[in-house]
Amino acid sequence: MDRQLNIVPFVSVDHMMKIVLEIGVETFLAELADYIEADFRRWQLFDKTPRVPSHSKEGVIELMPTSDGEVYGFKYVNGHPANTRQGLQTVTAFGMLADVATGYPVLLSEMTILTALRTAATSAMVAKYLAPAGADCMAVIGNGAQSEFQALAFKAILGITKLRLYDIDPAATAKCARNLKDKGFEIATCASPEDAMQGAQIVTTATADKQYATILTDNMVGAGIHINAIGGDCPGKTELHRDILLRSDIFVEYPPQTRIEGEIQQLDAEHPVTEMWQVIAGKAKGRRNDSQITLFDSVGFATEDFSALRYLRDQVKRTGQYQELDMLADPDDPRDLFGMVMRAAEA
Amino acid sequence: MDRQLNIVPFVSVDHMMKIVLEIGVETFLAELADYIEADFRRWQLFDKTPRVPSHSKEGVIELMPTSDGEVYGFKYVNGHPANTRQGLQTVTAFGMLADVATGYPVLLSEMTILTALRTAATSAMVAKYLAPAGADCMAVIGNGAQSEFQALAFKAILGITKLRLYDIDPAATAKCARNLKDKGFEIATCASPEDAMQGAQIVTTATADKQYATILTDNMVGAGIHINAIGGDCPGKTELHRDILLRSDIFVEYPPQTRIEGEIQQLDAEHPVTEMWQVIAGKAKGRRNDSQITLFDSVGFATEDFSALRYLRDQVKRTGQYQELDMLADPDDPRDLFGMVMRAAEA
Repeated sequence: MDRQLNIVPFVSVDHMMKIVLEIGVETFLAELADYIEADFRRWQLFDKTPRVPSHSKEGVIELMPTSDGEVYGFKYVNGHPANTRQGLQTVTAFGMLADVATGYPVLLSEMTILTALRTAATSAMVAKYLAPAGADCMAVIGNGAQSEFQALAFKAILGITKLRLYDIDPAATAKCARNLKDKGFEIATCASPEDAMQGAQIVTTATADKQYATILTDNMVGAGIHINAIGGDCPGKTELHRDILLRSDIFVEYPPQTRIEGEIQQLDAEHPVTEMWQVIAGKAKGRRNDSQITLFDSVGFATEDFSALRYLRDQVKRTGQYQELDMLADPDDPRDLFGMVMRAAEA
Repeated sequence: MDRQLNIVPFVSVDHMMKIVLEIGVETFLAELADYIEADFRRWQLFDKTPRVPSHSKEGVIELMPTSDGEVYGFKYVNGHPANTRQGLQTVTAFGMLADVATGYPVLLSEMTILTALRTAATSAMVAKYLAPAGADCMAVIGNGAQSEFQALAFKAILGITKLRLYDIDPAATAKCARNLKDKGFEIATCASPEDAMQGAQIVTTATADKQYATILTDNMVGAGIHINAIGGDCPGKTELHRDILLRSDIFVEYPPQTRIEGEIQQLDAEHPVTEMWQVIAGKAKGRRNDSQITLFDSVGFATEDFSALRYLRDQVKRTGQYQELDMLADPDDPRDLFGMVMRAAEA
């Protein structure tokens, strides 16, 4: 039998960085956005389920499975806001793809970096449908691990060239500005969220506290703004004042999940929302006019990770950046697993 | 920070075989059974959920998560009956443990071999509570990949020394008998299931067809028998005639899962069953008398995989049989994931 079936290609953190650098961050984000958009377009094919969470007082560990009928994928991801205080990542992740016909895994990968990329690529792809025409200035509130990826995705996919950065910790803003220097942006570091909103047509909120926060209050959001809300992504964790939600047209990935995890957990279960796949497939309207406030209440959905792993799989072949894991038992006779173990003693 | 937090120990198929051989199969099974039993005893601590399946016409891919509040674990497992026809395993699996407090993975392992071991260890551990006293003879119907592990677990844990083997394919029986030669059994290879049942106090059914089968019919099961039903483990896949179920006292792992996947999918949703953890914790009776037919309607539950990974983790430390995977991104500043990727270009 084909030896390769028993070996699972594994993309380590080091491989992932090399792949991103070889392709270039902006190209990676733009190509990845195309895969994500293509999978939103064939949304109805996917086996969809809300993620499977295990909550604790420190955070949450989640499994996010999906399948398009030919390929199965899942992601393991945690969210532990207090981790940064110990020098650990708030979010770490890994994921895999498997062949539906045999159930055999075909790719295992780190997904801490890949998740940051897919989250940003999804935001910018969605903004093509929701942001006001000609937008070139984005406020980024929350300048943590996600901020630079968001900025570059919006540059590569939407043409954003002006950034207005704010974080409750000025050191985070300085880090973000430093990382994005010489990447083609005009960058303003701002002293308050209100300041950051000046002249921005798009605002990205990406903060990490696990609580009901109000990063944006109602008076800060003017007509025509597109809000890309990234950080409200689990029960009890929101970023926007409820009054903003009531003035916005709200777009979501998968309502059964977003009702639990997103900004709209603050609203009635029947509050109208539009599913992004319908906008992308031409079945529903995105932005309708210049005064409308649009809100992408993003929580991250399994299909986006699936798209990212699918994109990665193609890049792995192209770049050869992976290692081979001896992960699947391969007895000569499939019914003779025991014999295989015993014969290993002789080898 | 501790470098080890970012490296995940990985137990490959080769490592797993070496660990099993170094410890010895029977010792491994007996020690593993103790971990499984200990976790059944503290059953109420666990975060329990039915496994998360993705069904296709060829089979099923499942995720089985659980947590005891300190450690989180999950297993990926597929079941594809037609795989053997292509020289592939019906079941392959891998799994991991993570630290609940940080969400960081702490162990990744092949679980094809480990699942075979934990299934057998669970069966034999349960049989301590359900099999008739003094049982020394077991019929094994279905002589595939699980059969030798079952036989050795029942020898190590229950003292079974006589085996009566039957499979629809005589080559499977011959393979099983060959593998178990010189392991301390008196082995009879049988021409029919009826023949295999002669003189057996325990019958293990472990067949793989995805269909409603009747490996055992009602007339084959006499008073006092303990039935260890392994193969009926997903919707539409059962092994026992319904009439046997009606004559048996039925013991299960986790009713919400067994009602869907086990033999009892043939019965009303209210049919009485006893949860094994209650028997093990002394809250319910196991076998009450010599004439009772006991049935362990085993489908495999997430806590058993958790116990197996917990046991493995201790053996990994002891044997040093693992490799280090660069699986978790480790920026010097947790908020500077982007900077880490960019700086990799300089390294």
